[in-house]
Amino acid sequence: MPRVSQDHLDARRRQILDGARSCFARHGYEGATVRRLEEATKLSRGAIFHHFRDKESLFLALAEDDVLRMTDVVAEQGLVQVMRDLLAAPPGNGDGPADWLGTRLEVSRRLRTDPEFRSRWAERSNQLTVATRERLLRQREAGNLRDDIDVAVLTAFLELVLEGLVSHLAMGLPADDLGPVLDLVEESVRRHRRAG
Amino acid sequence: MPRVSQDHLDARRRQILDGARSCFARHGYEGATVRRLEEATKLSRGAIFHHFRDKESLFLALAEDDVLRMTDVVAEQGLVQVMRDLLAAPPGNGDGPADWLGTRLEVSRRLRTDPEFRSRWAERSNQLTVATRERLLRQREAGNLRDDIDVAVLTAFLELVLEGLVSHLAMGLPADDLGPVLDLVEESVRRHRRAG
Repeated sequence: MPRVSQDHLDARRRQILDGARSCFARHGYEGATVRRLEEATKLSRGAIFHHFRDKESLFLALAEDDVLRMTDVVAEQGLVQVMRDLLAAPPGNGDGPADWLGTRLEVSRRLRTDPEFRSRWAERSNQLTVATRERLLRQREAGNLRDDIDVAVLTAFLELVLEGLVSHLAMGLPADDLGPVLDLVEESVRRHRRAG
Repeated sequence: MPRVSQDHLDARRRQILDGARSCFARHGYEGATVRRLEEATKLSRGAIFHHFRDKESLFLALAEDDVLRMTDVVAEQGLVQVMRDLLAAPPGNGDGPADWLGTRLEVSRRLRTDPEFRSRWAERSNQLTVATRERLLRQREAGNLRDDIDVAVLTAFLELVLEGLVSHLAMGLPADDLGPVLDLVEESVRRHRRAG
């Protein structure tokens, strides 16, 4: 019997995640039935749930993917750049980034009412908070950050704006005018200009 | 046959709205079945849908209620005060304000995918934009607002933060630390301090 290589397992896992993301984006969390997940991933339910315990785990793995990508950007360029990237993403046409964001909103009710789901979700999003705070601390040391407000407050501010942007894009609201808003957000955490 | 008075109709309408709000908050948009709406309002489906065309219209009437309340606060105290009020509301325990906000997020997918629903929703939320812009223009005239950024950008900024806050509260995330964040938001739209 051939030994299944790690590379093969990784590729299979990737195939499931990519198909599932598109399936969630297109049909929403509730609408992503096992049958649709099979179609989207081109794999049997047996294969899918060999890699992921259940639909919830699959969904959380996708959320974790997002967080990992975002923390990379945060470390190099900050959380405002994450927001600029979201703004620059092509509009959703059924299974695009905005549609996936919509699925994230769809689970918000579940996040509130299901403590275990919330704690699994919080674990992941906490990584983004940590990365943002670390980035801001480095910026403060470099003298680029305002120093009259606690870094925890600045972190929470940036995260709140990100949540607003995710919600805004997920609802399909017009976002053409949000570039200058992000400029203002960025400026608000920067070292004060010495106005005179 | 007795003539049904306007007062009676208004009271009936109020009874439906109050019951429906609690029902949506408790069961979500999809979960608020006609049977549950009957229980929550203590009225028959005939009576409910005599006043509201369908569940969607009922939901949008509640959203309009929210907007009317918010525009009153905006006119007097600004959009940041609306956010402070949201923050001060008691945490949801099944049918509280946060639970209702969750229902609003639940429909976000629908907002993106159903153009008619989106346009009915947009009509309502546009009233809040107008009220916010008017308030900011008055504040600018009074010399309280920064004058280096267009009022449209400041309006969009405040609305984006509000969207973030709604999403945050609806997800049941901890909000104890958001007071200082709102201070920062408020300060960001105010006239610049003359730092020295």
